[in-house]
Amino acid sequence: MSDAASRVIAECARIAAMSEESGRTTRRFLTPPTHAVHDHLRARMQALGMSERVDAAGNLRGLWQPANAGTKLLVMGSHIDTVPDAGAYDGVLGVVMALEYVSLAKAQQSPLAIEVIAFSDEEGVRFGVPFIGSRAIAGRFDRALLERRDADGKSMAEAIREFGLDSTRIDEAALTENAAAFLEIHIEQGPVLEAEDLSLAAVTSIAGQTRITFEFIGEANHAGTTPMRLRRDALSTAAEWIAKVERAACSTDGLVATVGKIAVEPDAGNVIPGKATVSLDVRHEHDFVRLTTVKQLLDEAKAIAERRGLTVQHQGQSEQPAVPMDERLTSFVADAIEAAGMPVRRMVSGAGHDAMVLAARVPTTMLFLRSPGGLSHHPNETVREEDVDAALRVGRFFLERMAAEIR
Amino acid sequence: MSDAASRVIAECARIAAMSEESGRTTRRFLTPPTHAVHDHLRARMQALGMSERVDAAGNLRGLWQPANAGTKLLVMGSHIDTVPDAGAYDGVLGVVMALEYVSLAKAQQSPLAIEVIAFSDEEGVRFGVPFIGSRAIAGRFDRALLERRDADGKSMAEAIREFGLDSTRIDEAALTENAAAFLEIHIEQGPVLEAEDLSLAAVTSIAGQTRITFEFIGEANHAGTTPMRLRRDALSTAAEWIAKVERAACSTDGLVATVGKIAVEPDAGNVIPGKATVSLDVRHEHDFVRLTTVKQLLDEAKAIAERRGLTVQHQGQSEQPAVPMDERLTSFVADAIEAAGMPVRRMVSGAGHDAMVLAARVPTTMLFLRSPGGLSHHPNETVREEDVDAALRVGRFFLERMAAEIR
Repeated sequence: MSDAASRVIAECARIAAMSEESGRTTRRFLTPPTHAVHDHLRARMQALGMSERVDAAGNLRGLWQPANAGTKLLVMGSHIDTVPDAGAYDGVLGVVMALEYVSLAKAQQSPLAIEVIAFSDEEGVRFGVPFIGSRAIAGRFDRALLERRDADGKSMAEAIREFGLDSTRIDEAALTENAAAFLEIHIEQGPVLEAEDLSLAAVTSIAGQTRITFEFIGEANHAGTTPMRLRRDALSTAAEWIAKVERAACSTDGLVATVGKIAVEPDAGNVIPGKATVSLDVRHEHDFVRLTTVKQLLDEAKAIAERRGLTVQHQGQSEQPAVPMDERLTSFVADAIEAAGMPVRRMVSGAGHDAMVLAARVPTTMLFLRSPGGLSHHPNETVREEDVDAALRVGRFFLERMAAEIR
Repeated sequence: MSDAASRVIAECARIAAMSEESGRTTRRFLTPPTHAVHDHLRARMQALGMSERVDAAGNLRGLWQPANAGTKLLVMGSHIDTVPDAGAYDGVLGVVMALEYVSLAKAQQSPLAIEVIAFSDEEGVRFGVPFIGSRAIAGRFDRALLERRDADGKSMAEAIREFGLDSTRIDEAALTENAAAFLEIHIEQGPVLEAEDLSLAAVTSIAGQTRITFEFIGEANHAGTTPMRLRRDALSTAAEWIAKVERAACSTDGLVATVGKIAVEPDAGNVIPGKATVSLDVRHEHDFVRLTTVKQLLDEAKAIAERRGLTVQHQGQSEQPAVPMDERLTSFVADAIEAAGMPVRRMVSGAGHDAMVLAARVPTTMLFLRSPGGLSHHPNETVREEDVDAALRVGRFFLERMAAEIR
């Protein structure tokens, strides 16, 4: 095992202690502990000989520009904000790894210029909107967002000013033309690599997602006095449909469909539910497959409700098309995994990432590290040192390839 | 239509206005509006020539004792407490009808002595325990109940004292040996009579009831990154079981089974539920049938959970055996329905009633009136005047029969 791998893990643990709350890791967009994280990373950047700055969206950006650099730039990074009571690796690992990749490039005397970005917000916890940092980097920041308010009533513009930044200059955060590629290293946040006993995966795309709320409306009645044949039970109806959701997903390769939320009214043990409200979340790498499944589930909800004398209403919550990663850049990652002596696993990301936003601006891909227990957004989230080491070995081959490709 | 029928409806509406809350009917055990109801009913009892008293459990009791009375007593009545935001008929109708039956008996110059009881508590809203009034009347009041506290921290003993009563004398509320029969008139609170276009039913028994809480325990995971085959989804598992509950009930005559409550954790649209907690309520007129079904549903919950790699735990909430009504007394009611020119419908009550408690002390039966829309525990709860009229016509025949039977 390399010293670098254990250093990466120690760094993530150190940054996890920079928190809004004592004893657990919570670091929302531009809250005070973000200053501590910036100070810490800035010192590391300076030690590596990088120049650094914080852009007007709160992204910390370090530039490694070797004397022999060409005009083009490899961009790397991930986010440093967290969900409440988070783990130490979601996001932060990708920033710390990017700095290790700069070390590797230096050791290789690579002519590659590398910009490392610590994105200010991906989780969207503070203002209820994700990807604040990467939107600015991608040149897609909608200034209307500045008026959104956090739970304390503070606007995003005020939060940015309070952090010491000038929100009128967010446009200047956008990547310039010389950015040739973006690589984000991230934990998988799922159980697949662990189940297959693999360290790493090259990400081929980020799944599209449909979120819909369904309301099944029947009739609340006394559980003792209403015979089965005279019922219009909203929960039994929803349950029949939930079974269809599971069946549809299991019979479609790569599709995931989830009913994660449910509420019934009046929600009493001795009353037949008159109304059941359920969420649906459907994801797939191909939009056509996702949309076909969603249509089928809408039709089935209607058919089941009608057969039982109920009605069903639905309301779309969000609709995000799939974002394919750049094929060529992904093949460089895959080749590097192979060169480092590991089987190549290509994988769709079921979760959203900054890479999703960057992909609209610059050729983008991701490298996933196994998530032990599939655990994420949880204080027990972890990574294995051997997987970090594997990602560092991949880095050597990847950086060599990039140095050859980018001029 | 008789004047009496419209008077019954007007009386119920008048009493509904005696409430803890302005604009809606809420009258919990011994709350101040109970005094108003007592005053109102007391005046009616006195006008009928009855003697009256309030026993130590807060039951108002009026005695009609004609000069030619024998030693035995017909007892009638129902409860005057209500659920929050109640209708006007659940309970109160049975008290008002009992007074009309006294009128009928007087008009018949019947030798029948009749005690009319306005039970103080059947719903159990104030102290979380039902049947306070009827427990005392049946001589089954557990004095430990006196220490229970309401939402304001007031004990039942204090509530009784505050109402002007002496809780040490509750034992004296018990029916004496001369009580020969108890008849409770009540709205059906279900949709059966309406569906069959009938006014009345003779109740043959009160269904037994099992209430159990089930916890299906799987694993919460990210809805995007966890493939279907690696999930242990507690809601999908519960949904499969809920379908079994419905199927078991539909395939067993007279059985009702209900999942009325459900909660999942963490209850977020993008997280696979790790835990689902659901209620089960099973009722049937025969304990053997109910217990066999409950056993089957427990086995199925376990089998479904195991097949999916989850665990399931269950906790019994309550277990009440069925209470058969007195066959002979019920046949008198049925005969009276027939004599009044109506088809005889015998019915199991799926809901609990004071009659359930009284049946342990005295031969007991019930007469149900159609509930339009099956509606109860709701401000729109109602009765049809023609059904009240039908119940009064039945009363004439029933009272004649009782006068002949009871001496």
